[in-house]
Parts: sequence; structure tokens; C-alpha cells
Amino acid sequence: MHQPPSPPLAQDKLLFTPGPLTTSMSVKAAMLHDAGSWHHEFNGVVAGIRQGLLELAGLSRQSGWECILLQGSGTYGVESVFQTCVPPEGKVAVLANGAYGERMVQMLECARIRHAVLRADEAAPLDGQALDTLLAGDRAITHVAVVHCETTTGILNPIEALGRTAKSHGKTFIVDAMSSFGAIPIDFAACGIDFLVSSANKCIEGVPGFSFVLCRRAVLAAAEGHARSLSLDLLSQLKGFEKNGQFRYTPPTHALLAFDQALKELHQEGGIAGRGSRYRRNHQTLLAGMAGLGLRPYLDPAIQSYIITAFPHPPIPGFSFEEFYRKLSERGFIIYPGKLTRVATFRIGTIGRLFPRDLEQLVHAIGITLTEMGALEEVRTATL
Amino acid sequence: MHQPPSPPLAQDKLLFTPGPLTTSMSVKAAMLHDAGSWHHEFNGVVAGIRQGLLELAGLSRQSGWECILLQGSGTYGVESVFQTCVPPEGKVAVLANGAYGERMVQMLECARIRHAVLRADEAAPLDGQALDTLLAGDRAITHVAVVHCETTTGILNPIEALGRTAKSHGKTFIVDAMSSFGAIPIDFAACGIDFLVSSANKCIEGVPGFSFVLCRRAVLAAAEGHARSLSLDLLSQLKGFEKNGQFRYTPPTHALLAFDQALKELHQEGGIAGRGSRYRRNHQTLLAGMAGLGLRPYLDPAIQSYIITAFPHPPIPGFSFEEFYRKLSERGFIIYPGKLTRVATFRIGTIGRLFPRDLEQLVHAIGITLTEMGALEEVRTATL
Repeated sequence: MHQPPSPPLAQDKLLFTPGPLTTSMSVKAAMLHDAGSWHHEFNGVVAGIRQGLLELAGLSRQSGWECILLQGSGTYGVESVFQTCVPPEGKVAVLANGAYGERMVQMLECARIRHAVLRADEAAPLDGQALDTLLAGDRAITHVAVVHCETTTGILNPIEALGRTAKSHGKTFIVDAMSSFGAIPIDFAACGIDFLVSSANKCIEGVPGFSFVLCRRAVLAAAEGHARSLSLDLLSQLKGFEKNGQFRYTPPTHALLAFDQALKELHQEGGIAGRGSRYRRNHQTLLAGMAGLGLRPYLDPAIQSYIITAFPHPPIPGFSFEEFYRKLSERGFIIYPGKLTRVATFRIGTIGRLFPRDLEQLVHAIGITLTEMGALEEVRTATL
Repeated sequence: MHQPPSPPLAQDKLLFTPGPLTTSMSVKAAMLHDAGSWHHEFNGVVAGIRQGLLELAGLSRQSGWECILLQGSGTYGVESVFQTCVPPEGKVAVLANGAYGERMVQMLECARIRHAVLRADEAAPLDGQALDTLLAGDRAITHVAVVHCETTTGILNPIEALGRTAKSHGKTFIVDAMSSFGAIPIDFAACGIDFLVSSANKCIEGVPGFSFVLCRRAVLAAAEGHARSLSLDLLSQLKGFEKNGQFRYTPPTHALLAFDQALKELHQEGGIAGRGSRYRRNHQTLLAGMAGLGLRPYLDPAIQSYIITAFPHPPIPGFSFEEFYRKLSERGFIIYPGKLTRVATFRIGTIGRLFPRDLEQLVHAIGITLTEMGALEEVRTATL
């Protein structure tokens, strides 16, 4: 069935994805400058970002916390914690209920670091009780690692309960807060966090290019000599910043200038509370609209974050995600494929420079698209 | 001595550095768009970049070559080759005559990979004869690694002679061509190169955010199972591109859009020959102008590249590099500090979106600055 190519759109397509995201034009325009990575003006920007992230988290250097920026994607940031901090005789307990938990397992396998995996169903949050049993039964475990918002489903794991359990056994607690930090409040003390990893291109609405690690200085310093990779050596990276304010190796200068602007815009929006409030409204707008089309999310609302939402494919024979995706893309809306192992889903992110009006437009486009695909009546009937 | 702060300049300062560089406004403007990292339009850009780099190198997939892009700085790219390709029983011979050769040694120490180091003086190119002796005497060596243009001094190492020697002993040959690829012709076959690493923000004049590796597919494929890091696993990264055209983990989308534009501008300039010709004219303009001020480069011209040039500090008592640097910066010219272990130098890069006229302006500013510092007459006298 031959179709003429769709004419190009006048505007950039909106990204309803877990990142890279749609960012503001002012964030992107901050990249219209070349900065010298050795120059004091640029180092001032880097210092401001490190300090700004600590403040955003409610932490301070005085109380023993550090912020370390690392070139590469969020995955690099998570791996840098393992590669730097787990001693040769250490063992990591990974809590996994989705693809990003499983990725941690892959990292540890690759680095030949001993580990145990506590899995939960992709539709169920991880459980403090089960972690307690695991830690009581395996004294070799030194570190516990978990994903806060698992974007496979959009589920929010109970890091406070899990962290309390990890600390009650005296373990180091590592949180991958890639898609939650900046929009979901996190109480570092209550959660017993030692290392939290996030990335430039998530809820702070910067562009991709680096990740960042917020950590207890003493815990990191105790890892001296364990690093298995030079590039991913978090402790050396910190020492580099302390020595001369610079990245050890070439930083993504433009992404850092964009992030500096993104942090300013986050403050203008009212910080984590303000941003979280907008994302929550985005999510509610999406859910209400999709319900009107007969489409319900995969997860129980009680455990669903307002970051990203998975929807099962409409229950109609021969539904083509590729066609659905393409038709929405031609209208200027980029959604995200599913990543669940058991159920065919697609995902819709509600983070980035998106507002409830954009979700209303997306829902409208989804309705038209399903009608064009001859699917809408069937969806409505099937879900009645 | 209190000085009033210098008023800000209307324009961006020009970067006479080894990268990040001054790039064209059209390269930066390509970043004013947010691309979905899963979207076919963006994947088309990625495929075009991979193909474009192979063509630029005079290589092809049909003849067994691959181009792999990797998030992070150039250092990540070099380390990814070691972390992925050296078997547990392997041993790497590093040829070092500067900071970037020594960085390779650090990488291998960190990864607990066996290695031998063949050092030359920072002012002397590495020697094929010495490598031959080393390889004849140590049969455990499996890989030979060298930096092409060592930006510590700007020296150009004879990779053809070194590669011939490495291949005559049947070793895998790894070249760090970070600051040379794209502006200095490299004959992959004559040099016996198996892996060549370079970076987005050097002679192709993109912005920082990723490195790339050009390699023989068969040699990389033989490394299956050796990877010690997930993020730096070059073979998995290749398999990811082959599976669905995507990076395994979040790519620096904006830096890739900029690089796509930078490749177009490189072709418009006449490819490697055209770009090399401009950089050579930049370098000649710099040398002629500096000679007029009585300043001569550190290296013998016969082994000096046209990429970056080290100059000894002017031979006057109390010369302050910090003051020299600051005064030039206030005039809009960013130079680069020295990195030599024995001699105090500063460095001037002649790569990036710079033209001979910019070098003329820089030399003029250096002349004024040295006069202001009361140094110019002394320099002229001292060097007569």
C-alpha cells in the first residue's frame, strides 16, 4: 500500500519521551557559544552547576555531600558508582523490576563484580521486607542499588522503605534517580542515600551529554584504589574538580551551558515543587484524555509516577504500533515504544518543556489516528 | 595592585586551543532542535555520520571497516578500545612522548591490563627501531598503542613506521588520532591501523559530546567476551547500531546534529586536504608573526604539526603566564597553558573555525600584551 511521503512540519516535533526531551528554546540558545574548557569563566559555570544541584537536593558540602559531573549518558553515571566504589571483595544487591534494574545487573556482570538480584514483577514495586530477608541471609552483600522511577513502566519504587532496610543492615545505598530527580521530592536523609545518580536531559530539562552523582564524600573517599576504569573513576573526577575546577577530560561544554540555563528556568518555575506540579498536571491531563478514548494505563494508579506512563496496545486484532507511531509522528507528536517483557505497550512521557495543553493536543491526535486506523470504535467497545 | 574588571566583550572569545574549539555559527545553530533518540529521522543522521566518517577515512564497510560512535570525551573512546579488545592474558605496549601517551598508561593501570611502556623525550618522535627491539624481546605483547599528534608539544609521531613494525610482529595497532584525524591525511593500510580513535570536537569542528572509533570489524569481533565495562563496550555498541540504528544508551543528540553539519562544512572546504591546507596556513601565519616578536616554538619544525604549537615562556625574569593569559583573554583571545614536564611553555592551537587573519590578530594582541607587561624589548634582546 503505497503512501505519499508526509510533508515536513514547520515546527520541531514534540517529544513525549523519557529523554532526550523537548527543551525550551532558551536552553538550546545557550549553546550558541563556544567555551574554553580551561577558562575561568567556564569553570565558574561548572562550579555553579555543582553547587546548584546540591542546593536543589537540599544538601551541602558542609554537611559532607559532593556533586560530581561525569561526561556521557546516565548509564555511565550509574556504572561509575559501581566501577569506583565497590571493593574487590564487595557484593551488590540489585533490586530490579524493569529494564533499568536489569541494566545494573549487566554492568556488574561486565565488571566481574559479585552481585545478587532481587526481582519483583514489572507491575509491582520492590519490597523492603524481601530486601530484609535477602540481606539477613547473605552477609557478603556490601551495597544495595535500586532504580527510583523505573521508566520501563513508570513505576515508582519506595526508596525510603528500601533505604531504611539497607541502612539497618549497614549497607551502602545507591539510587538511580535518572527520571525522577528534579521533579519528585527526595529526602536524602530519610532514604539513607549514599549515592544518587541522575542525568542532564531528564527533569531538569537540559540536553544530553553528562550525568551527575550526588554522594556522601566520606563513602566515596573510602573507595580509594578500587576504580577499574579511568574515565569512569568518580573519585578522581572529584579530585579533578577540587584541584582546578575542571573536568579531567574534555567536558561537553555546550551541554553544560544549556544546563546552567535549565537550572535557572527550574528555579523560575518554583524548583522541584513547581516542576513536579506541572508534570502532575500533564499526567492527569493525559490520563483523563486517554480514558475518554477508552485507553487505560498498564499500572495501578497508586504506584504510577507522573513521569512516564505505559499503555497496553489497544485490544484490537492486527494493531500496528509502527503505523500508530508513524501517523502520530507525521502530526508532530513523538511517543515512545514499550519495553515490557510480557505485555505489548507504548509509553507516553509527560516530562520536558510540555504543558497540559500539549497533552490535550496529543490525546486529540491519538483519537484521530485511532479513528483513521479504524480502531477507535473497536477500542471503545472492547473496553466498555 | 588593584585593577578594575575588564568590560565584557560583544563577541565570543576565539579559542586557540586543542579543543573544544571555536566552531562555526551554523554548526552551533544545528543544535537549536530537540531530536528523539529513538526516532528514524535522528537514526538517519547517525547512520549518515557513521558512513561519512568511513568515507572521510577512505574506508568502507565492504572492505571490513566499521565506525562506532561512543558517548563521552575522546579519552572514553581510547579507553573503550582497551577495555573491550585486550584479552585477559593480553599485554599492551604503549609508546609515550607526552601527556596523552601517559594517559593510556593510566587507563591500563586502572583496568589492571598488563602493559609495557616505551618512552621517548617529549621533544623527539617515537622510534620504530626501539619498538622493534621491544617487541622482539617481549613476546607477551599483543597490542601496540600510540598517539599520532601528541598535543602536549604538537609533535607528530611517525605512525606509518611504527605501524609497519607492529604489524611485522603481528600485533594489533591502535592509534589515538584525536587531534589529527580530519586535517592530516592518514593511510590506514600503509599504517596497518586496526583501531583509530578521534573525537567530535577536534579537526572536524563539531562540539564535544562523543568520540568515534574506526576499526577493522574482524579484529573487534574477535574480542567477544573481553569487555570489562558495559558503557565502554565497543563491540556491544556496534551491535546496538546494527540491531536498530540506535545508540544503546542516550546519545548526545544535539552534539550529533552539530556534527552532521560540521561534516557538511568539512566537505565544502575540500575535505581533509582543504582543511589541512587552512590549518597549515594558520600555523605558518602564527610562526611568522611570533618570530617577528622574537618567540620561537619549542619543537624542531621538522617534527612539528600544524595542529598546536608549544612556545617556551619568554626568557625574562618574573614572566607571569597568568597575567599574559588574562590580558589576552580580555582582548578576546584564549590561548592554552603548557603541559610539558621539563620546560615552562604555553600552547597555541591553530585548529577550529580560525583563519590566517585570526592568527594575525592574535599575534598583534600578543605583541601589545608583552609590551604592556614590559617584556617585549627584553624578549627581543634575549633572543637576538
